Amino acid sequence: MVLMSYASSILGNHPAEFGGIDRALLNEAVDACVACAQACTACADACLSEEQVAALAICIRINLDCADLCETTSRILSRHTGYDRNVTRAVLVACVAACRSCADECEQHAAMHEHCRVCAEACRRCERACQELLAALT
Amino acid sequence: MVLMSYASSILGNHPAEFGGIDRALLNEAVDACVACAQACTACADACLSEEQVAALAICIRINLDCADLCETTSRILSRHTGYDRNVTRAVLVACVAACRSCADECEQHAAMHEHCRVCAEACRRCERACQELLAALT
Amino acid sequence: MVLMSYASSILGNHPAEFGGIDRALLNEAVDACVACAQACTACADACLSEEQVAALAICIRINLDCADLCETTSRILSRHTGYDRNVTRAVLVACVAACRSCADECEQHAAMHEHCRVCAEACRRCERACQELLAALT
Amino acid sequence: MVLMSYASSILGNHPAEFGGIDRALLNEAVDACVACAQACTACADACLSEEQVAALAICIRINLDCADLCETTSRILSRHTGYDRNVTRAVLVACVAACRSCADECEQHAAMHEHCRVCAEACRRCERACQELLAALT
Repeated sequence: MVLMSYASSILGNHPAEFGGIDRALLNEAVDACVACAQACTACADACLSEEQVAALAICIRINLDCADLCETTSRILSRHTGYDRNVTRAVLVACVAACRSCADECEQHAAMHEHCRVCAEACRRCERACQELLAALT
Repeated sequence: MVLMSYASSILGNHPAEFGGIDRALLNEAVDACVACAQACTACADACLSEEQVAALAICIRINLDCADLCETTSRILSRHTGYDRNVTRAVLVACVAACRSCADECEQHAAMHEHCRVCAEACRRCERACQELLAALT
Repeated sequence: MVLMSYASSILGNHPAEFGGIDRALLNEAVDACVACAQACTACADACLSEEQVAALAICIRINLDCADLCETTSRILSRHTGYDRNVTRAVLVACVAACRSCADECEQHAAMHEHCRVCAEACRRCERACQELLAALT
Repeated sequence: MVLMSYASSILGNHPAEFGGIDRALLNEAVDACVACAQACTACADACLSEEQVAALAICIRINLDCADLCETTSRILSRHTGYDRNVTRAVLVACVAACRSCADECEQHAAMHEHCRVCAEACRRCERACQELLAALT
């Protein structure tokens, strides 16, 4: 997989120490955040083109929040110069909250809109990956 | 002030209900996040041009994190369609953590670098504004 | 104005040379981009809460594009380490295109939605500021 | 590849018409932008942790610009409600400029820093994908 190979390759050649962070959990969290951000941006736009867009307004809003938070989380997790435990933990908690809300909302439209079904799947994966990384940071 | 007038003007003409959120605290939090993001982006780059950049590596890193988190927080606080209390609270907590870490770091270089002194001020204002909004959301 | 004072204060204490870039035009372009990004994010969300949201779908879409491009442009213009003329010019051209399209669209709804009227004003200011900076870079 | 399947799956279930845009070129451009943004963010941070960071200041700066532009480009390309040819073309041109500059810079450090070698590869792929999409839009 091309994307993973760039990211994990750079991470594998990073001069900083990584404290006790598990590399596999870290890689999965970054990849899940990036994939979820992309899914949420695309789902928001697909919802916007639906005829019944008014019924999807809340879904679009949480999609946009989730995309922004996942992108920011992926960036913070990709930096290792001067690791800051408090900031890392707090952004992971926020990312989990956004992914959970977005998945809950998208799942309600999953039977009607395939883009919501796929987006909910991306959100659940990201929620899980961030929770597992959080647990490992404790 | 031009920036505030666009933002508060749009907020004042938003069709959504605002629950019990205090508009003055909300406006100040959004403006403080936007100003802090801008200060952190500029401070990171000013640090990068200093001769003693190696001594500022951690400062640059937390500047970048803080810019990303403040931008995301300002976006989430600017949306009111389908207000989500959990996500709003969690991103405010994360923003406070980043602003505090960035202010702590920049203050150590404030005597030597005026850009760090100004950035620390922007971070402290944002830390305070987000905390006050958080307290009001409880 | 607090925001301007952080940004221009940091810019005024930046160690890098600024080539021949006019500082007043640069400051105005950064401030206009930041204000426009904030206006577009807020306008997209206000549109999303309108009853006739289906008629505003294209407006929401260009609002989101314009917010993203203005934010990226403000970041690139806030960096001065190793100035890159090609990238700076190209991102300004793209920002002008997005601001023009967003202003054109918002102006069509300005009589009905005050948030669109205010957003169009922010977009026109940003379009003009970026064009003037572009002309000065030639 | 998990990331591609979310994105292309949502794109394949999007209700909007796609004009004459070639889906394979579009998918590759979005994926290349996302991968390049991630590589540039990680490379900037890896450079920041190098002992000789002062020699990499310009590399870090263009890495940050390229990450921001690739992220914005991937978002704009992921939206299809009300396609705007002018904005799409202009952001692709800017993205090509940033990828080219970043690849040129990273290639100079590729022999010494593996993270720069990998990042240059991600930038060249993205430069090419955006150029091919641009050519197809003409």
